[in-house]
Amino acid sequence: MQIIESPEEMQRLALFLKRSGKTIGFVPTMGFLHAGHLSLMRLAREKCDVLVASIFVNPTQFGPNEDLDAYPRDFERDELLCEEEGVDIVFYPEPGNMYAADASVWVDEESLSGVLCGASRTGHFRGVCTVVAKLFNLVLPDLAVFGEKDAQQLRIIERMVRDLNFPVEIVRGAIVREPDGLAMSSRNKYLTELQRRNALCLRQALDHVVDLVGQGVVDVAVLGKSVANLMASVPDAVVDYVEFVDDETLQPVGRVKGKTLVALAVKIGTTRLIDNAVVVP
Amino acid sequence: MQIIESPEEMQRLALFLKRSGKTIGFVPTMGFLHAGHLSLMRLAREKCDVLVASIFVNPTQFGPNEDLDAYPRDFERDELLCEEEGVDIVFYPEPGNMYAADASVWVDEESLSGVLCGASRTGHFRGVCTVVAKLFNLVLPDLAVFGEKDAQQLRIIERMVRDLNFPVEIVRGAIVREPDGLAMSSRNKYLTELQRRNALCLRQALDHVVDLVGQGVVDVAVLGKSVANLMASVPDAVVDYVEFVDDETLQPVGRVKGKTLVALAVKIGTTRLIDNAVVVP
Repeated sequence: MQIIESPEEMQRLALFLKRSGKTIGFVPTMGFLHAGHLSLMRLAREKCDVLVASIFVNPTQFGPNEDLDAYPRDFERDELLCEEEGVDIVFYPEPGNMYAADASVWVDEESLSGVLCGASRTGHFRGVCTVVAKLFNLVLPDLAVFGEKDAQQLRIIERMVRDLNFPVEIVRGAIVREPDGLAMSSRNKYLTELQRRNALCLRQALDHVVDLVGQGVVDVAVLGKSVANLMASVPDAVVDYVEFVDDETLQPVGRVKGKTLVALAVKIGTTRLIDNAVVVP
Repeated sequence: MQIIESPEEMQRLALFLKRSGKTIGFVPTMGFLHAGHLSLMRLAREKCDVLVASIFVNPTQFGPNEDLDAYPRDFERDELLCEEEGVDIVFYPEPGNMYAADASVWVDEESLSGVLCGASRTGHFRGVCTVVAKLFNLVLPDLAVFGEKDAQQLRIIERMVRDLNFPVEIVRGAIVREPDGLAMSSRNKYLTELQRRNALCLRQALDHVVDLVGQGVVDVAVLGKSVANLMASVPDAVVDYVEFVDDETLQPVGRVKGKTLVALAVKIGTTRLIDNAVVVP
């Protein structure tokens, strides 16, 4: 396994691999890897000759009051995990080598980005789109795997690939959960033991919605109220949003008709967690 | 010479060529080719295995009151000229195949785009950056040639390549002029015989500035006034801007110290023409 820190070197190697006819699979991460990331790597591993994983805590997708500095990092552990998953190249750049001091070009998604997490995290998806465009141009993947836990990010990246014509196939990786149902996240590390138990309310709320829709309840006002009641009983949980949106356009729906994305963001103490499910009536 | 209308087919062929180890040279144009475009093709021809030229009047870089519909087109003539220059592939897409009706991802340059032409043509460079990013992803060039006549566009594209890490070398093509000094432009076609003569004031103004700077006049207020006087004597000419800016940052300068871009935009009747020169003290 090769570790590359220089963007120029990464691109040179990627160009060489492409010219040699190799297919490149790519899993971009912010590191502090967990079983969710590893499942994405396994998915990519099957579909390519050369597997590249990037580890880069991208500063431009964090707001001024967010947890950029506190975001957990452990490169040595990440390196071992990548090796075990058969990663060929770990791309591990310095922020200073990824962004010029006078960087002035940004990739903006303007339809799917204003809702859900985009509503409270101004500029977040601009940072995500920009860094993913940069990484695509440096790693030159044939396919890239993104997790369904970040449902909005996944759809925005798919839109970016479509609208900017990136020659990259986006593969969706299913959410990986702890045995008790909590979605894997690097931010779970922030939770105390008690908060960890309370955090189960996200999955419970989603299960509850799936049950209700299964029973024929499709009125979003009713479903939303039911989730709110469930959340109100959880100490330490403050709902940021519970949204029912069209699975493709991310526009709010009044009734569950077609494929509907149920997306949650909840603060447990100071830790913001997200989870989601797709329901059909 | 092959003509490709489908973006998907263009990308498939480009991927195949790259995998076969061929280098691709690219000249993006809006068609209605003149000697300026052809010089860019000749420059690219020398440096690559496969030469691609695109002909696409990009709707997203025209403002609502600009000349999108009136923009001159002559594909059959363009085709012959490309063939004569040794172009291998003409990429000639339909607007409807380049932009989805719900397209929502844009590439924005935010530092160099607000001045000069960007000041009066809101959204112009967003359209340019977005279409060039799309074309780069479809044609996958190793190098692309842009003309120095569109000085601001050239610098913005160079910035985009740097900031988004496109694996593309940008080659600058010198301005090509008519024997009397008028910079080649597809829009010259709009000019009446009289306007055509009056249009020489752009080049004359630039020559005048070069002379003055050669004589040691470096105060931009003095230089600007001298150009304004010259322009005032030309019937039919309305100055949009005469700007003296840093050649790299495009920020206005008060004195000609380092490399300074002198950029002009002048309306001759209803036709807006641009020209520029780089001066050093």
